[in-house]
Amino acid sequence: MRILTSADANFDQQLTDLLAFETVNDKGLLETVDDIIHQVRQTGDKAVLELTQKFDSHPAASMQDLMLTQNELKAAYDALQDSIKSALDKAAERIKSFHQRQVQQTWEYTDDLGNRLGQKVTPLDRVGIYVPGGLASYPSSVLMNAIPAKVAGVTEVIMVVPAPKGELNSLVLAAAYLSGVDKVFTIGGAQAVAALAYGTDTIPQVDKITGPGNKYVAAAKRAVFGQVGIDMIAGPSEVLVYAEGEKEDNAEWLAMDLLSQAEHDTVAQSIFVTTSEEQLQAVEQAIEKALAQLPKADIARQSLQNRGALILVKDRAEGLQVINRVAPEHLELSLDNPDELIADIRHAGAIFMGRHTPEAIGDYCAGPNHVLPTSGTARFSSPLGVYDFQKKSSLIYCTKEGSKPLAQVADTLAMQEDLEAHARSARYRSGD
Amino acid sequence: MRILTSADANFDQQLTDLLAFETVNDKGLLETVDDIIHQVRQTGDKAVLELTQKFDSHPAASMQDLMLTQNELKAAYDALQDSIKSALDKAAERIKSFHQRQVQQTWEYTDDLGNRLGQKVTPLDRVGIYVPGGLASYPSSVLMNAIPAKVAGVTEVIMVVPAPKGELNSLVLAAAYLSGVDKVFTIGGAQAVAALAYGTDTIPQVDKITGPGNKYVAAAKRAVFGQVGIDMIAGPSEVLVYAEGEKEDNAEWLAMDLLSQAEHDTVAQSIFVTTSEEQLQAVEQAIEKALAQLPKADIARQSLQNRGALILVKDRAEGLQVINRVAPEHLELSLDNPDELIADIRHAGAIFMGRHTPEAIGDYCAGPNHVLPTSGTARFSSPLGVYDFQKKSSLIYCTKEGSKPLAQVADTLAMQEDLEAHARSARYRSGD
Repeated sequence: MRILTSADANFDQQLTDLLAFETVNDKGLLETVDDIIHQVRQTGDKAVLELTQKFDSHPAASMQDLMLTQNELKAAYDALQDSIKSALDKAAERIKSFHQRQVQQTWEYTDDLGNRLGQKVTPLDRVGIYVPGGLASYPSSVLMNAIPAKVAGVTEVIMVVPAPKGELNSLVLAAAYLSGVDKVFTIGGAQAVAALAYGTDTIPQVDKITGPGNKYVAAAKRAVFGQVGIDMIAGPSEVLVYAEGEKEDNAEWLAMDLLSQAEHDTVAQSIFVTTSEEQLQAVEQAIEKALAQLPKADIARQSLQNRGALILVKDRAEGLQVINRVAPEHLELSLDNPDELIADIRHAGAIFMGRHTPEAIGDYCAGPNHVLPTSGTARFSSPLGVYDFQKKSSLIYCTKEGSKPLAQVADTLAMQEDLEAHARSARYRSGD
Repeated sequence: MRILTSADANFDQQLTDLLAFETVNDKGLLETVDDIIHQVRQTGDKAVLELTQKFDSHPAASMQDLMLTQNELKAAYDALQDSIKSALDKAAERIKSFHQRQVQQTWEYTDDLGNRLGQKVTPLDRVGIYVPGGLASYPSSVLMNAIPAKVAGVTEVIMVVPAPKGELNSLVLAAAYLSGVDKVFTIGGAQAVAALAYGTDTIPQVDKITGPGNKYVAAAKRAVFGQVGIDMIAGPSEVLVYAEGEKEDNAEWLAMDLLSQAEHDTVAQSIFVTTSEEQLQAVEQAIEKALAQLPKADIARQSLQNRGALILVKDRAEGLQVINRVAPEHLELSLDNPDELIADIRHAGAIFMGRHTPEAIGDYCAGPNHVLPTSGTARFSSPLGVYDFQKKSSLIYCTKEGSKPLAQVADTLAMQEDLEAHARSARYRSGD
């Protein structure tokens, strides 16, 4: 695992290299995706069925075979072991409770001229949720996408999840039931994104598509953006764990927190930043030791070698610089008093504070969303939330008297922009 | 101007055809834009300067010639005629006052286990604003983009505006001064978008790019999305005016409101919907009459012919259906009591209520933003606002005792997802 030291002359460049990760958008990929979208727009269900048979080796003979009923979802939930059902229930309840605090309300006020101004908040009508199939088919992602949509008041939530060879993860279906998903189609890839964006005879057209997926899904989401809304183009997952070698720290815990990110994917990124050289070494050794016990040691080891780093900084100020430079998806502050840093952290998807808040708790059940901005996009974007499923309309209601001074201003500025119909339309109201 | 009647058997298809508008994304365009982005990433300032000389016929000899100083902006503002300065001041003040109500605050609460959960709100560090040059160079757009960014607390607002042949609109510079824009570069096109997204020696890299532009700008924004945030891909502007033939209605006013949209662009869209056949005819005649007096009659006439429509509906319920189907950027409700409709309007960028609130007032100075979702995207997106310049980070701070039940849930679910390091990381905290 590479070790960087802020005292190095070329530290800045090393950090740049460490963070460099660009999603592959080769021409072949884009052309394939464009072609799939074109096919789905042209022939709808026919294309979706054929592409699903081809790419997912799905045995479906008709679109009917690619739909799940509410009864099937309920059966999956009812069949869960009690301990698992109880864990899923608790997670769902906490996620719901946190997201309810994000609900935005319509507001309005009257200005000093007597005109009413405001912002109306409306839930989206219909949303599509993409849930990856196969290896990375996570029930927790169903909860994290569907619950905020339902809390926002979205009328219809449509879930798509590919079923390679027709096989489905029953816990994913149970999570869909628990979250109140309205319809499920067992399709995936660019064809699922295209079907949701444009609609087919069977698959309803949605207003927004959220959820992670492979590079075909990501490219398709980028291509249909504008036709529908999308959440973000997800990159590999990352964590930055920050510590200062305080005596309460436990190297084994820190190592496992880093490994919980590394086990996701060979391109996942785990970064440990500390002001203590001794701690850096202790964590390095603890990682080596813990790796030996992990079923996914191979993936984790590759991830740490490819993209991991242990970074020694001089002091907290430098630590904060590195944190803001990385703008990590997950930031863990293993400190006695993490509150001291919060004001200076400008960019992070989620901040896990103290020693008893590992990322894993946030991934499943703390309450906040686990769909977070990756690859430094925390510089400008936010966790998935209820606000992604509500939108705003401005409200403007001028009185006869109140409109006059505004119409005069509009008239003057419109004439400067050579827009005479604008000016005249305003002038009718100013009485000029 | 085409007339549609909801009673027609094929009304639904006619409406679909009327609304069909797809941004041209031909391969040639995309390749040109990709190539420009590639050049700017490879050679930075050199590419920006050369492309600006080439596409804008700009006489600049160096990047220095493509930068404006704060003194130049201030001089433009100081040189304004008093009436124009006063109009610009009033508009800016009202826009600021409305947007201040959109500022989001950090919040936090303690759950029943004693854990702290919350959402931290942080302004973006640096934002780029694209302002079109030439014909459609609108000072009002500078206010509408820069003021929300500054209200949000964005540290640095960088404006780019192309200057064909080196010529600039001094009112645009004055508006930049008034809005508190920090830096201005007189560049445009895909090269300006690429420079802002990736940075050059002279042009600072930004976190988000907002503002409208031509098809090259739109394609470039789509391409850099992910590297930076973007607001939206803007389409042509539209208005839907709805009336019910009430006696207070004035056909001349309604006609001019429709024309104020049509004069923008030959692909702008003006739609009039009414329950009264008599009113429909009166408005049609008033449009014909008003056209004769407008300097931009040619553009407006083409726009009305290409994309305009007068639509007769049976009743208010049908009117609402058409409104929600169109999801108009601007919706004008010329009614005695527009409040009656608000709850049933699901999709609209901005709603102009009553007879004294023409779109022109909203375009300049009512207060709400004039950057609004076009082409039906009000189904899923919102006016540009302060929320576009703030982002959120989740806060999770578990206590030693409070983390235990959560760690148990995370442990159970992680094992179901075959993520053993997650489970172990949680288990350390549950003490199991």
